[in-house]
Amino acid sequence: MSAEQASTLWCELAWLGGERAEAGVLIELDGERIASVATEVTSPPRQATTLAGLTIPGFANAHSHAFQRALRGRTQAGRGDFWTWRDRMYEVAEGIDPDVCFALARATFAEMALAGITAVGEFHYLHHGPGGFRYDDPNAFGKAVIEAAREAGVRITLLDSCYLEGGIDTEVHGAQLRFSDGSYEAWAERVDRLEEDPVARVGAAIHSVRAVDPEAAAQVAAFAAERSWPLHAHLSEQPAENEECVAAYGKTPTALLEEVGALSERFTAVHATHLAEADLRLLGSGGCGVCLCPTTERDLADGIGSARRLVEAGATLSLGSDSNALIDMIEEARAVELDERLESGVRGHHSAADLLRAATASGSVAIGWPEAGHIAPQALADLATFGLDGVRLAGTAADHAIESVVFAAAAADVRDVIVGGRFIVRDGAHLRLDVAAELNDAIAALPS
Amino acid sequence: MSAEQASTLWCELAWLGGERAEAGVLIELDGERIASVATEVTSPPRQATTLAGLTIPGFANAHSHAFQRALRGRTQAGRGDFWTWRDRMYEVAEGIDPDVCFALARATFAEMALAGITAVGEFHYLHHGPGGFRYDDPNAFGKAVIEAAREAGVRITLLDSCYLEGGIDTEVHGAQLRFSDGSYEAWAERVDRLEEDPVARVGAAIHSVRAVDPEAAAQVAAFAAERSWPLHAHLSEQPAENEECVAAYGKTPTALLEEVGALSERFTAVHATHLAEADLRLLGSGGCGVCLCPTTERDLADGIGSARRLVEAGATLSLGSDSNALIDMIEEARAVELDERLESGVRGHHSAADLLRAATASGSVAIGWPEAGHIAPQALADLATFGLDGVRLAGTAADHAIESVVFAAAAADVRDVIVGGRFIVRDGAHLRLDVAAELNDAIAALPS
Repeated sequence: MSAEQASTLWCELAWLGGERAEAGVLIELDGERIASVATEVTSPPRQATTLAGLTIPGFANAHSHAFQRALRGRTQAGRGDFWTWRDRMYEVAEGIDPDVCFALARATFAEMALAGITAVGEFHYLHHGPGGFRYDDPNAFGKAVIEAAREAGVRITLLDSCYLEGGIDTEVHGAQLRFSDGSYEAWAERVDRLEEDPVARVGAAIHSVRAVDPEAAAQVAAFAAERSWPLHAHLSEQPAENEECVAAYGKTPTALLEEVGALSERFTAVHATHLAEADLRLLGSGGCGVCLCPTTERDLADGIGSARRLVEAGATLSLGSDSNALIDMIEEARAVELDERLESGVRGHHSAADLLRAATASGSVAIGWPEAGHIAPQALADLATFGLDGVRLAGTAADHAIESVVFAAAAADVRDVIVGGRFIVRDGAHLRLDVAAELNDAIAALPS
Repeated sequence: MSAEQASTLWCELAWLGGERAEAGVLIELDGERIASVATEVTSPPRQATTLAGLTIPGFANAHSHAFQRALRGRTQAGRGDFWTWRDRMYEVAEGIDPDVCFALARATFAEMALAGITAVGEFHYLHHGPGGFRYDDPNAFGKAVIEAAREAGVRITLLDSCYLEGGIDTEVHGAQLRFSDGSYEAWAERVDRLEEDPVARVGAAIHSVRAVDPEAAAQVAAFAAERSWPLHAHLSEQPAENEECVAAYGKTPTALLEEVGALSERFTAVHATHLAEADLRLLGSGGCGVCLCPTTERDLADGIGSARRLVEAGATLSLGSDSNALIDMIEEARAVELDERLESGVRGHHSAADLLRAATASGSVAIGWPEAGHIAPQALADLATFGLDGVRLAGTAADHAIESVVFAAAAADVRDVIVGGRFIVRDGAHLRLDVAAELNDAIAALPS
């Protein structure tokens, strides 16, 4: 058994899915799974490894573009909006090859591991070489991303994104040439060659109604349905998308995706910031997921979505770090509640437990790992522990530990992270990688 | 010379107030002041102490209620609004005596020091014993707070708050009895006994138009003017305050404070969230300060103020941690910009340099330490250094270092803090106090 492998864990406090953390939780592992969970175990048995602080299921980061980590801090000078930001992002995308992508993604996924993320849904649209040049292996990028996650120690779902148009009825150009397979058929043929394994799964994505016409969107949706894959799409992040969609098709992006058969319990709408009443009802009655990415939505001036009303309509929330301008799932979680407070003038739209569910169990379902995101027998032993001994969380009492963590913790408070029963982070350090050095090197290697 | 005392500092990068950080900055100290600043010093001289990362002036936290640190994480269950939160805050205030206050404030100010805060404006309204009982020393609380800051190593301005009414034309009751001196005259007599020293200054505060009638507000304003003290007031944090003020006096809180002579360049309006057009013009034309407290405003569902328009009108922004639900001035700084992005749909309302100025030089002026907040000859040698070697800031390049820090750093990235030429934080640790342990002990000592 390696030093990384755990067999019996004793948690000072653990969140088992309820409204309160439990004190003294003993977790027996059976390989990568949880075998049993006992509560009220007041002191650690001799053979147990102690997890001091609050242990929760590892976070599922349901929406990431790993390479955008290189933009952190680099897009903040001057003015602009989502669309000028997108131009800067395209410049970075233009300068990346699969090797650079691998190094940058590995470092970024390792930063996620340090933040308690044990599974990531990588919404992947950078498929081809400069000008659309096909690599010998047309999945060179996708495989690099999967391998990066493996080496960083986190599970991944590669949400392979179909991207065919540069806008509604507009040809792809510039960096977009690297995103496009040219046709649904070429996309499907390529994606069909991707292979799953114990830590990597595959899902499908319709980039957006801007980048995929309705006919192709219907085909991608059918392709995902045949395989019971998760299906994701960027949806109504900006008002301009809605306006263009209504002008071209006479319906909102949500209505269009409903019409092409995309909406289902396997579907996750990413952002869903600017929704009409009918859109809310469609996403809710379809039992869809909605992945909010609040720190990115703040950064890109997207606006505040209708998280509470989506939940009331029947949708299930998950959370994503998206552009990776920050990687801190707790900041994402509390931002859902806090931004809604700013807009409404009242508190308490989402409880701390609800926000943790979005960041763990619901996110795991959204990216096709339903057996993760719970501390329960049979679940994957994917765990994150927040130390309560730092200054941000000092004074936390057991009966409000989840509120303290959700509303006051930072990624830097994550002490231990376990994926499939193996430690990947211990005492705040990644066990395999010098993450900051790798980030520095990977970003320095990009064309400036 | 103690181990804490610095004489020559070499900064890998330092922000000297412009739009870019400078590389290789040599700072010579003369006791508690900066003697000289040289740039383009490519390597550290032998006698210099190296500050690796980005060095900025220490933060001025222009609005704090230290004892509210005890509420962190404890008010997040259930629903409610600003007013129900206030009831919980009153419960904590009811249970505090000067000794408890000292311990809690010392630990909280030490947490501020770890976050790079070198001066705090403590908006202080807890003056008396249970039921309004007068201690032998009527400034027992104020002196405890000043002493707490001294031991924590940070400068303080005790903004002693006049609080006479429980609401417009409403007598004080419950916890408010501890806040009230009974009359302006009694407040003034008590405050006149407070003494300043090299690390502690005194200012005045009108708690709010809810708690101070216009006649007393005019007297407090005149008292502060005679002494050239800073004058602060909570202003229009909630719509209900505006409505009650207009109903009682036929004018907004801002107009009322203007009428009583409170507005001036020494005046700081705290929050200023819900302003009429005329209010914006009054604050701007008066050259007033406005202290935004965005993490508290998010927490308490206050709403998003008009920061950009206040600046355009002529007001000067500063920042405060207020309720201390978080202590992270960088989170406060970026929240000003990010919340305004959410509301407007565009980016770039406040540059990173503007936000840093609010958090440093402007905050220093607001709390009456105009000689702090600059890295320049004659300025107080109050400095904070962000390490760029953690995962959040890895990949930062010199030419966008201030954007990276403002938009991606956390308090945990603060490595070194110097106040008056002496290190109080080194390598992320407070040199005098075990801060987390003190926070735990102080909060555990409160009545539950």
